[in-house]
Amino acid sequence: MKSTAWLTKTDGPLAAQFRFLIEADRLKTVIRANRIADDSRRENTAEHSWHLALFAMVLSEHALAPVDVWRVVQMLILHDLVEIEAGDAPLHDPQAAIGQAEREQAGADTLFGMLPPAQGAAFRAIWDEFESADSNDARFAKACDRLQPILLNHVVGGGTWTDYDVDEGRARARTSQIAHGSAVLWAAAETVFADAVAMGWLKPMPEVAA
Amino acid sequence: MKSTAWLTKTDGPLAAQFRFLIEADRLKTVIRANRIADDSRRENTAEHSWHLALFAMVLSEHALAPVDVWRVVQMLILHDLVEIEAGDAPLHDPQAAIGQAEREQAGADTLFGMLPPAQGAAFRAIWDEFESADSNDARFAKACDRLQPILLNHVVGGGTWTDYDVDEGRARARTSQIAHGSAVLWAAAETVFADAVAMGWLKPMPEVAA
Repeated sequence: MKSTAWLTKTDGPLAAQFRFLIEADRLKTVIRANRIADDSRRENTAEHSWHLALFAMVLSEHALAPVDVWRVVQMLILHDLVEIEAGDAPLHDPQAAIGQAEREQAGADTLFGMLPPAQGAAFRAIWDEFESADSNDARFAKACDRLQPILLNHVVGGGTWTDYDVDEGRARARTSQIAHGSAVLWAAAETVFADAVAMGWLKPMPEVAA
Repeated sequence: MKSTAWLTKTDGPLAAQFRFLIEADRLKTVIRANRIADDSRRENTAEHSWHLALFAMVLSEHALAPVDVWRVVQMLILHDLVEIEAGDAPLHDPQAAIGQAEREQAGADTLFGMLPPAQGAAFRAIWDEFESADSNDARFAKACDRLQPILLNHVVGGGTWTDYDVDEGRARARTSQIAHGSAVLWAAAETVFADAVAMGWLKPMPEVAA
């Protein structure tokens, strides 16, 4: 980055907002475990966030309880910004989860703290609600976040299921919160898992295989 | 893409929505002219769309007229999906603009036509409104779309201004619709242009240089 000295010529709150938006650009360089649909490369967190916002817009009719789609989309646009500071913790990598919650809380302090105070507090409240998953909106947002990589894993024929040697039981356990946001989408996920096992892209559970 | 045969086991409208969401993934492979802030590579349109949604959330207080931020964000999430079919036409490349409007209209027919009819029509109406720029919401969405690459060009020290040998007059002319969405953001863009000229990243206008 060459210079943001020009920002000193811009008014205080707007300069703070521009600094935040330029810092947020770093989310384009945070690489996730799963691949994009054409299997050419792994997905970055910025494009993932866009895809999830689109998931919420398209699929909201299937939410378990009525949701405010705008609040869901705000959560999905903001939810992974903390990975700029904390990095991505792949769902199927238990080592990566160690200390991740603390890193993400610190990241939220840093990033949302860059904004004018009232705006930063409002964004932080949206992020906290998503993290705690204690509203219908947050549960549906979480469902979208868990569902999207399942579809992408199936589309590429294995993806993180193969990379992390995941079996059907583990795949279901790590994504079962989809059911808290949408029974319809959880049923769809079950269909995907079953088909992925049939195709040999996801290992059957040991009980089933024995 | 390996197989979407499992979708035949899923109900009609949901299968159509999943096909649309998987097709939309291709936006991650549409490459734009401008670079991301760390100058490591060019930006793709999916991550660009996420960044714009964040711009709208952060900057909406500066809109010229009151806007419905949710409608603005929907426009920004959807506005470039047609590039899956039409490709990106760089702002400073006049050759790329030839036939682009027709290609994008055809792309909109194809993509939004994948969705259940009522949903596809609603998304198409949002996209049409953005394209025609004839509402406060659309004008503010357009302002965000024009402002973001200006900031990124400055951050990387030239970007598409250098690539396309752009002078200050052309840069202003191609982005002046920012003023129709936000006087504050247009004033900020003017500050960025002036600083970029001073830094040697944007050519001065011939009149000024003579």
